[in-house]
Amino acid sequence: DVTKIATDDYVGFTFFTGCMAMMAAAAFFFLSMNDFDRKWKTSILVSGLITFIAAVHYLYMRDYWASNAESPTFFRYVDWVLTVPLMCVEFYLILKVAGAKKSLMWKLIFLSVVMLVTGYIGEAVDRDNAWLWGLVSGIAYFAIAYEIWLGSAKKLAVEAGGYVLKAHKALCWFVLVGWAIYPLGYMAGTPGWYDGLNGLQMDVIYNIGDAINKIGFGLVIYNLAVQMRNKEA
Amino acid sequence: DVTKIATDDYVGFTFFTGCMAMMAAAAFFFLSMNDFDRKWKTSILVSGLITFIAAVHYLYMRDYWASNAESPTFFRYVDWVLTVPLMCVEFYLILKVAGAKKSLMWKLIFLSVVMLVTGYIGEAVDRDNAWLWGLVSGIAYFAIAYEIWLGSAKKLAVEAGGYVLKAHKALCWFVLVGWAIYPLGYMAGTPGWYDGLNGLQMDVIYNIGDAINKIGFGLVIYNLAVQMRNKEA
Ligand SMILES: CC1=C(/C=C/C(C)=C/C=C/C(C)=C/C=O)C(C)(C)CCC1
Ligand SMILES: CC1=C(/C=C/C(C)=C/C=C/C(C)=C/C=O)C(C)(C)CCC1
Repeated sequence: DVTKIATDDYVGFTFFTGCMAMMAAAAFFFLSMNDFDRKWKTSILVSGLITFIAAVHYLYMRDYWASNAESPTFFRYVDWVLTVPLMCVEFYLILKVAGAKKSLMWKLIFLSVVMLVTGYIGEAVDRDNAWLWGLVSGIAYFAIAYEIWLGSAKKLAVEAGGYVLKAHKALCWFVLVGWAIYPLGYMAGTPGWYDGLNGLQMDVIYNIGDAINKIGFGLVIYNLAVQMRNKEA
Repeated sequence: DVTKIATDDYVGFTFFTGCMAMMAAAAFFFLSMNDFDRKWKTSILVSGLITFIAAVHYLYMRDYWASNAESPTFFRYVDWVLTVPLMCVEFYLILKVAGAKKSLMWKLIFLSVVMLVTGYIGEAVDRDNAWLWGLVSGIAYFAIAYEIWLGSAKKLAVEAGGYVLKAHKALCWFVLVGWAIYPLGYMAGTPGWYDGLNGLQMDVIYNIGDAINKIGFGLVIYNLAVQMRNKEA
């Protein structure tokens, strides 16, 4: 049975569009990865995994929304807790040319897990202390942004120079601007904070954010791989 | 229809996350295996099979849990009885460089099947004698640990030396520490033994254990293959 979707159900619309966009992006990354040499292939494979994981969760979230008309917070966090650490892996992979160590990767992964676990607690478990959990989560987010914008990751990017530095910078902007969408959504979803926004709009915001951050992030890396290949040719 | 999942249903949460993580890991191993020469390709293919088998069983277990709110013991053992022997194959495959014989592989497989069959009987069939079946199972577990830590497998790893020895050691730690999670779960699930823990927590423990043991184990082997490739280049 196919449930009908109201023509003005923008949350449903963005869940459908997002789901298909993620599937197409995953197909694109998986099918083009073999055009690159080994080093970049792995980065593009990881971009494919990120969008593939998202495609599967968007299938659930789409149907969850259609059946329950309720935000699928649970699935969002299952998705994030897998995809955000993989984005941290991407930072490490592109900086490996400049000698990035695994410890950088683990540090970013650790911070991202802290950010998401505390965010989930604040959003779904201990709502009375949403501000406290949001604060801890925000500190972890800030630490990630600091590490890549000004910390050791930045130093490695400068050492690598050229296209790698450019791509690193683009990814940094994603983290600073693209990821900032999520704490806005969190605040919009916390009762008594922004009563103007309601739950419906929150999901539209999250869905647009996810498309930008997951597909856009992957395309920056794809683009970097293309540029490095042309340079060598 | 998509069933709702309570936001504090951590068993459901770890079943979902685990399922997706296994799928992504299987995709990763399958799509990157061709970057390695034949010897390592097979090891990575087996890592892919282990996570693929787990992904399928996690799909069942996730839905079983969502519909019945009961531990899917049956599926767990179906999964283990396939994946644990494959892990024994992995030990054999990486020690082949030092001349490991198939008899080592069959010995480990035999012990793992004894461990799991007796464990299943104690957990699901003859609960009154849980202690006896658990004891036999524990002896088989101990024999596996002995074989790889101190027995003939250890000797072969030392002969191989270098990265193979390092990877072997990492896998040994998985068996000693990572696998020890399961007998703890068994004791937690046996009535009258650890009343503090309940069935729900047992599944969270098993799910975290599976993610560590299946994906982590595979990544150790992937890492070994990368190091061997770099050494040759
Ligand atoms: C700071 C902060 C948050 C940040 C979430 C972020 C930054 C999520 C990023 C998700 C991405 C990039 C997903 C996939 O593409 C939360 C958890 C909402 C809680 C409130 C404080
Ligand atoms: C010793 C012992 C057990 C050991 C189970 C183990 C060691 C399972 C390993 C599973 C793995 C590694 C799964 C996949 O990744 C049982 C059967 C619980 C019964 C009680 C005694």
